[in-house]
Amino acid sequence: MNFQMVRYILGWVMNIEAAFMAVPCITALVYQERSGYAFLLVMLCSALAGFLLTRKKPHNTVIYAREGFVTVALSWIVMSFIGAMPFVISGEIPRFVDALFESVSGFTTTGASILADVEALSRCTLIWRSFTHWIGGMGVLVFLLAVLPLAGGYYMYLMKAESPGPSVSKLVPKVKRTAMILYGIYIGLTILQIILMLLGDMPFFDALATAFGTAGTGGFGIKNDSIGGYSAYIQNVITIFMILFGVNFNVYYLILAGKARQAVKSQEVRGYFLIILAAVTVITLSVTDMYSSLWESMRHAAFQVGSIITTTGFSTTNFDLWPQNCKTILIILMFVGACAGSTGGGIKVSRLVILLKTVKKELAHFIHPRSIKKIKMDGHPIEHEVVRSVNVFLITYAVIFFGSVLLITVDNLSFTTNFTAVAATLNNIGPGLEMVGPTQNFGLFSDFSKVVLMFDMLAGRLELFPMLLLLTPATWRR
Amino acid sequence: MNFQMVRYILGWVMNIEAAFMAVPCITALVYQERSGYAFLLVMLCSALAGFLLTRKKPHNTVIYAREGFVTVALSWIVMSFIGAMPFVISGEIPRFVDALFESVSGFTTTGASILADVEALSRCTLIWRSFTHWIGGMGVLVFLLAVLPLAGGYYMYLMKAESPGPSVSKLVPKVKRTAMILYGIYIGLTILQIILMLLGDMPFFDALATAFGTAGTGGFGIKNDSIGGYSAYIQNVITIFMILFGVNFNVYYLILAGKARQAVKSQEVRGYFLIILAAVTVITLSVTDMYSSLWESMRHAAFQVGSIITTTGFSTTNFDLWPQNCKTILIILMFVGACAGSTGGGIKVSRLVILLKTVKKELAHFIHPRSIKKIKMDGHPIEHEVVRSVNVFLITYAVIFFGSVLLITVDNLSFTTNFTAVAATLNNIGPGLEMVGPTQNFGLFSDFSKVVLMFDMLAGRLELFPMLLLLTPATWRR
Repeated sequence: MNFQMVRYILGWVMNIEAAFMAVPCITALVYQERSGYAFLLVMLCSALAGFLLTRKKPHNTVIYAREGFVTVALSWIVMSFIGAMPFVISGEIPRFVDALFESVSGFTTTGASILADVEALSRCTLIWRSFTHWIGGMGVLVFLLAVLPLAGGYYMYLMKAESPGPSVSKLVPKVKRTAMILYGIYIGLTILQIILMLLGDMPFFDALATAFGTAGTGGFGIKNDSIGGYSAYIQNVITIFMILFGVNFNVYYLILAGKARQAVKSQEVRGYFLIILAAVTVITLSVTDMYSSLWESMRHAAFQVGSIITTTGFSTTNFDLWPQNCKTILIILMFVGACAGSTGGGIKVSRLVILLKTVKKELAHFIHPRSIKKIKMDGHPIEHEVVRSVNVFLITYAVIFFGSVLLITVDNLSFTTNFTAVAATLNNIGPGLEMVGPTQNFGLFSDFSKVVLMFDMLAGRLELFPMLLLLTPATWRR
Repeated sequence: MNFQMVRYILGWVMNIEAAFMAVPCITALVYQERSGYAFLLVMLCSALAGFLLTRKKPHNTVIYAREGFVTVALSWIVMSFIGAMPFVISGEIPRFVDALFESVSGFTTTGASILADVEALSRCTLIWRSFTHWIGGMGVLVFLLAVLPLAGGYYMYLMKAESPGPSVSKLVPKVKRTAMILYGIYIGLTILQIILMLLGDMPFFDALATAFGTAGTGGFGIKNDSIGGYSAYIQNVITIFMILFGVNFNVYYLILAGKARQAVKSQEVRGYFLIILAAVTVITLSVTDMYSSLWESMRHAAFQVGSIITTTGFSTTNFDLWPQNCKTILIILMFVGACAGSTGGGIKVSRLVILLKTVKKELAHFIHPRSIKKIKMDGHPIEHEVVRSVNVFLITYAVIFFGSVLLITVDNLSFTTNFTAVAATLNNIGPGLEMVGPTQNFGLFSDFSKVVLMFDMLAGRLELFPMLLLLTPATWRR
């Protein structure tokens, strides 16, 4: 284990986080809020620690998969700790476990909150919560790779560990340039959404916070009723952008590179839109008698489907009151998740497409035992290695899932609450059903359960293995 | 597709079922029950149809995997239809869908009932329900292979499709002899259990019916409170035998063949007993304040753990009232299931052992990317083909599971009810939680949902693929 490089990269993560804290500091200045001092203090401490850790560049900059995974996992934990400190210092979330839960939930773009009344928070705290979504959405290490002068192909492992999906979306040969393109698209889309929401007379602060939450597919609201209080136009804009941020960013790169035809052919993106269309249709027809018009039903259905499949977690209505078929569709969408290479969580559409193709192949194999066919995706045969890793992912996922559901039974809440709480955290969504439904919060869990759910949020965001490797003793042997 | 062979084997299944119906006929004679005429009528019709279908032996007796799977799936459907007819004709379960549900539930060893009051049934109907468990436990085609003079290795496909587990338990080179040994052990254990229960002063009829339900890991009770009314001694005997029938029958064969040392080394069986021990310990400690003594808590815990992990489904207490951690353990055990090569259902311990080993291997691979290790079980490397088929099984399982949970939402019952209803049928257990808990029944579902759950029971018993192949158009092309 190249501990020097781990130390060095962690130092840079602290530097970056200090820089990002300028956002709440400026917000505090604008609105003249005392909580701003908490952010300033943490910002300075983080910058100082970062400065000390990055002063000496290691001689040996070679890192392998092991270092990559460990560095990413530690970076996210450190980031969450630092991000939680201002909440505690300002006294807005005085209990440390709660503050850490909120911070982990922010960076992992989950959006599960322990707060019953978010409107009581200061503006700088609100914008920091939403901004952590934006940072976590594309990933802080991807950001680091985009701005730092790090040479060599080794850094691919960092990107690999932080990017969602079964295969890494390396758009161009150079890691640095790939990272820059990704952040470019990300910033562009975010700005576009802000402009469109401002055109709907949304206050600037609200537009900024909401766009951060949408772009990162996070879901922290700045109102107690999430997005329910905004106009139909604004809700529709958010619906569209949630769905757009759930698309594989490769598609946008292809479109920008003039290869729109190739982009449209992506089986994952087609599957993604097909699932959305089917879910919206069924739910719209099932909730017509709960709303005044078919259009209103469709608006809520589209918003909620977009919010859950992209693992954002915003809500415009209390979907816990919907009929059971709608709730079950939403639960299934929680697991489906968005596209690989997007800012969304979940199992990912591409993994499911690969899994369904293996089942289809198996059935064909029973009928024609001598046929030898390779599974194809987008016209190319899928490497056996990818199929295997998708299988292992699913198994690991199931183990963590049921393990967590079992662990949080210590609080003796209902099965639906526990099941959807884990589904909502491991898939980085936010709200679940019943006691963790859209009008409820995660404050009712014990500290033990909160720690389990924090682990799930991090494991979900980092695609399971980095967090598991942290807990494997063999990782730490030289 | 060799339709002639399918016809021929289906004919033999009807002959065998007619022969098995002697059991309820004799019971009706002993207790002088009018319902016996219904069984006699169906018995004669089944024998006549079987005679006509088996009169002409096909010239070409070669069958492949496809014919094997289709024959097994069709056999079980035909068997269930015939088995349901006496219920309808005698008027004891007048609605056809309900009668079919009860029959499918019996043969698949599920034990989920649509009846609220089983004590109102005649003795011959009660013994037939329990006897279908016994027939379905080891499999009617395995029975066929044991008694019919079928030559050639092709019949292995029939056994493969009906035997539970990732690899076929072919004890000796000859299929016929393997089938005979399996039925020999099965009958021996059943008789032993009957004797031990009779020693506890259980009435002979009750002992017979209960032993049939235990041996097949079925779970139909002949009392409304299942096993709750019997003495602690009888409950403990049933606990032990449920657990014994969940053990891989290979182990018994090895013990009989004087290779007890090899039998004890089986990782699957060790894992099975370890899981039981852990679950019983946690549940015993969690329910101590609900029962009068630690012994009573342990008795109920052991009974319920044994009943659920072996997918039997008997109950001695209403476990839906237990704390959430106990209920969640039982839900997880529903999926774990018994050992491969036993009469139990579920995913099977050996599959889970293989799955967990692949996760462990993956983690090791991240740490030492260049190491090439094969996964081993009981000291032997596992074929890549087996690992792959286990993965495909799990994926197919998940698809059928969530698809079913979604389909039965038409009845707008709670998520926990739907989730555990599918878990209880797909894993061939019987009772679930809430509206399908141990004191409830499946009568509240609509006919549509009942059909879905019947499919799940058959898919679960036949390990998914035979039922899926029936629905695949390509299967039927020549």
